[in-house]
Amino acid sequence: MRPIRLLAGLLLAAAASMTGCAGNDAGSSDALTTGKWSIALHGGAGFVPYDIGPEKTAEYERSLSNALRAGAEVLDEGGTALDAVEVVVRILEDDPLYNAGRGAVFTADGGHELDASIMDGSTHACGAVTGVRTVRHPITLARRVMERSRHVFFAADGAEHFADSAGVERVETSFFDTERRRKVLEEVLAERAQEKEGGSTVGCVALDTYGNVAAATSTGGMTAKAPGRIGDSPIIGAGTYASNRSCAVSCTGVGEQYIRNTVARDIAALVEFEQMSAEEAATLVHTRYLDPRDGGAIVVSRTGEIALVFTTRSMLRGAADSSGRFDVAIWE
Amino acid sequence: MRPIRLLAGLLLAAAASMTGCAGNDAGSSDALTTGKWSIALHGGAGFVPYDIGPEKTAEYERSLSNALRAGAEVLDEGGTALDAVEVVVRILEDDPLYNAGRGAVFTADGGHELDASIMDGSTHACGAVTGVRTVRHPITLARRVMERSRHVFFAADGAEHFADSAGVERVETSFFDTERRRKVLEEVLAERAQEKEGGSTVGCVALDTYGNVAAATSTGGMTAKAPGRIGDSPIIGAGTYASNRSCAVSCTGVGEQYIRNTVARDIAALVEFEQMSAEEAATLVHTRYLDPRDGGAIVVSRTGEIALVFTTRSMLRGAADSSGRFDVAIWE
Repeated sequence: MRPIRLLAGLLLAAAASMTGCAGNDAGSSDALTTGKWSIALHGGAGFVPYDIGPEKTAEYERSLSNALRAGAEVLDEGGTALDAVEVVVRILEDDPLYNAGRGAVFTADGGHELDASIMDGSTHACGAVTGVRTVRHPITLARRVMERSRHVFFAADGAEHFADSAGVERVETSFFDTERRRKVLEEVLAERAQEKEGGSTVGCVALDTYGNVAAATSTGGMTAKAPGRIGDSPIIGAGTYASNRSCAVSCTGVGEQYIRNTVARDIAALVEFEQMSAEEAATLVHTRYLDPRDGGAIVVSRTGEIALVFTTRSMLRGAADSSGRFDVAIWE
Repeated sequence: MRPIRLLAGLLLAAAASMTGCAGNDAGSSDALTTGKWSIALHGGAGFVPYDIGPEKTAEYERSLSNALRAGAEVLDEGGTALDAVEVVVRILEDDPLYNAGRGAVFTADGGHELDASIMDGSTHACGAVTGVRTVRHPITLARRVMERSRHVFFAADGAEHFADSAGVERVETSFFDTERRRKVLEEVLAERAQEKEGGSTVGCVALDTYGNVAAATSTGGMTAKAPGRIGDSPIIGAGTYASNRSCAVSCTGVGEQYIRNTVARDIAALVEFEQMSAEEAATLVHTRYLDPRDGGAIVVSRTGEIALVFTTRSMLRGAADSSGRFDVAIWE
């Protein structure tokens, strides 16, 4: 924890407000900052049992807090929303608690196929990868696709070939193995269990002090998924969307439903065209167009409003902003 | 040509109008038809030279007319929009004039990787495939994914594995070879030419007499494309979108731009939320958010309005409806 630095940010924000800089939400120059930032993250919508006990609960909360603090610090120190969402998702990818990066679920043949996407709301630049087996941080590979390729979306071998040319760290696919996920695979394959922990996809959305929003999502997909299945996480407009015209969105849940309903873009469209709040927009899409228990979404609007909406029992999540908010939660 | 049948449809439409059936645009029962239908297709936005001569011009027009007539007949005989768009795209996939199915461009290593997607506006059901090398009709595979899989989107080997289980025709990848496309590959690889015929992606959108819209898009991608590159064609919300709340859209052009700007969904969002006409919405997205010469889109709205918008020199296209419209065109 670095409360002093966060407090300093708060004071700077107050100073900016007093000198009339606040409210400049279209600035792109480093010199023009609002002092105002917001960030939200998720570690998947799902069905974490209520009775996991205080130790496991504390483990989740500690993990979420660590990632959230890292992102908050980036923003508080004048970093960009794009840097903040990448930093947060990299931390969650390295944490075996989540189904992204290390800790990713197993495919039916005992491997891993990772998906990720990232989007810069100030330019609509974006990058995405699917079916990646040997890249430690798929979110960083997605960012390199965004910044160093004329393409936006790469699959499988093509994505890994690009990783080499872009200098992105490769690992053996066994790097992603965890005993916990292997046990789930065995149970699913033995039909002893439905996939219990679908979800725990990770994501992050942020507004920086320059008035720009960004979104990032990363996942290992579904346990024992059919080979080649692509879910919503790498799809711009489905699992991830960001636009300075409205908001940044990252989704988690039954991927097929989020693709059919272009959920990330639809939430942003309701904010953009219907002048809804982020909370209203995310709630409407989840209640009117999606089925109960489909999943959830996190949103940060261009004005800094944070929405954390889900229809599952749990969504691992956290939110912080320049006014001093800093909280994490698991259940409703 | 079967003008008699089309004329019969026209008379039926007039009769329906007189008996008060027209305007029932939310019907889902086979018994309730409006008698009113619309269809549009494209064979790619691009830069067909003005001086191709009368013979080549006639060849394009004949091809477009044949496909358009087949779709119009499906609708005129009371078939669904979903059937109509699949029938049209299958015909275009088999025609070597277009970069979809037979006639698909070559990848850098002399193969073919095909993408396609389809969406039913009445349910938002959709299916998509990417990186397919041996499926004769990718659009039909996309439809099988929609109807017979719990997933929405399959890549490469996974998509072909699914094709076998769904009984979709496979061919040797050499089936897609054409001398014309091989020559373009050689020129591109020898850096003697920019990709001259990027585009000629194909697509179709339709409104049926039950008030339902559907969209379909199919492509071979870019000549000598980087391995694993995914464009907008298989992405719901980018290259393809359909919703009875607004319209059906199929796009063609610089895929990356259509992904970044979620073009198909954005056009539909402007119709849905801003009450724009299909023409206004497609024009606004192409002029305000896309770059000049990026490509084009075809739209059929829930009320039957047809829009054919492009910022390139040419867009192979056609449009027909139950009022008797039937036309095809190449240039502005």
